[in-house]
Amino acid sequence: MHICYIIAMEAEAKPFILRFGMKETEKYFSPLPCRLFQYKDTALNSTLSIVTLGRQHERDLVGCEAASVATLAAIERLKPDLIINSGTCGGWKRKGAEIGKVYVADSVMFHDRRIPGDDEWGTQGLGNYSVWKRSTDIATKLGVEMGRVTTGSSLDLQPCDEVIIEREGGELKDMEGAAVAFVCSLLNVPILLIKSVTDLCDDSAPTLESFLKNLKIASENLSEANASLLKLLL
Amino acid sequence: MHICYIIAMEAEAKPFILRFGMKETEKYFSPLPCRLFQYKDTALNSTLSIVTLGRQHERDLVGCEAASVATLAAIERLKPDLIINSGTCGGWKRKGAEIGKVYVADSVMFHDRRIPGDDEWGTQGLGNYSVWKRSTDIATKLGVEMGRVTTGSSLDLQPCDEVIIEREGGELKDMEGAAVAFVCSLLNVPILLIKSVTDLCDDSAPTLESFLKNLKIASENLSEANASLLKLLL
Repeated sequence: MHICYIIAMEAEAKPFILRFGMKETEKYFSPLPCRLFQYKDTALNSTLSIVTLGRQHERDLVGCEAASVATLAAIERLKPDLIINSGTCGGWKRKGAEIGKVYVADSVMFHDRRIPGDDEWGTQGLGNYSVWKRSTDIATKLGVEMGRVTTGSSLDLQPCDEVIIEREGGELKDMEGAAVAFVCSLLNVPILLIKSVTDLCDDSAPTLESFLKNLKIASENLSEANASLLKLLL
Repeated sequence: MHICYIIAMEAEAKPFILRFGMKETEKYFSPLPCRLFQYKDTALNSTLSIVTLGRQHERDLVGCEAASVATLAAIERLKPDLIINSGTCGGWKRKGAEIGKVYVADSVMFHDRRIPGDDEWGTQGLGNYSVWKRSTDIATKLGVEMGRVTTGSSLDLQPCDEVIIEREGGELKDMEGAAVAFVCSLLNVPILLIKSVTDLCDDSAPTLESFLKNLKIASENLSEANASLLKLLL
């Protein structure tokens, strides 16, 4: 089995790369900036790949376009059996979120692609992509809650986003999940999403400050959860 | 020279395909939904490709993720010398826009990727991608105005978008341009953007209604302009 993780930022991937002693395959995606780290278990006939989005404008790339590029490039080159999008997200205290808490997604959609006036285009804009059918079983075995992930291209949260998130029952807000799931939907590759909370949208702390402060603990918890997840899968 | 157009919708591409008698290369991008239409002039050693985004959820795909996928797939498979993103856009009466008026972009950026609190991430979010260096010369020869294109994932326009568009001097609002330009920036492929106005953001008419009503005339004007453009290039 070949499992390929799409992870936006190096900091989110690092604890994972260290834990498995994964090696970088240099220039694999060149000239794309995506980076590939791999671990092969020949006895189990398994390959674990981590693809990060790479850098531009002096920062790790984040967001939906870079995630679309990395996912397409990863699927076409690596032909994985499963894509896992692992990353950090925002949550809401009133919906039970806490800093560092890990979730598996039960569904994923966009919250900032509004096409008002046409039902079909409206539906296409929001997306609503399916997750891997084993997601529920895996959440149960990991002992983590499931949540509805909604994706937007901005770190902040505008009133128009809140309207859609509330209406659609969104519980976890990220910046890549639905883009990864969209590309998987085009190519019929199953996707599982696992997310850890870095900031609380109904808290008064500034989003970026919370994000950076909590990135390490959230990434470590995510790394622990991913290690347990891989024990189940490989 | 190989010129590859990225055009979101069939209706935007159709007058162009008919004018050049272009043939579809079936299943070229399969299983991606993108469609490829080509015209080869062996005497001139030139190839003209049109890639449309294809369909999902009973509508032509539009927006940044589908445009990212189509652009990456087109560049990797076709290895064009130049990408042209041709399509419709919104404009502002007070900035001189009229229904069906054609523009060449002098620059392109996102208006709905907000990452407040960090200058570098803020810069990455907005994008600000370079256009092909011959864009100004071409606009002059075509006798069309140039404009600053800003791209967002929604058909509507929210107050947070208007703030950024005003601050950054945006003149033409589309749903794909910056995503196409982002992928071109990663792969060092030059890009020219040519846009025709379907709706006026400072008019009272509903956006989708204007868009659908004016799509034919805008696409026809765009087709005329593209025919003149290709005479300059091939």
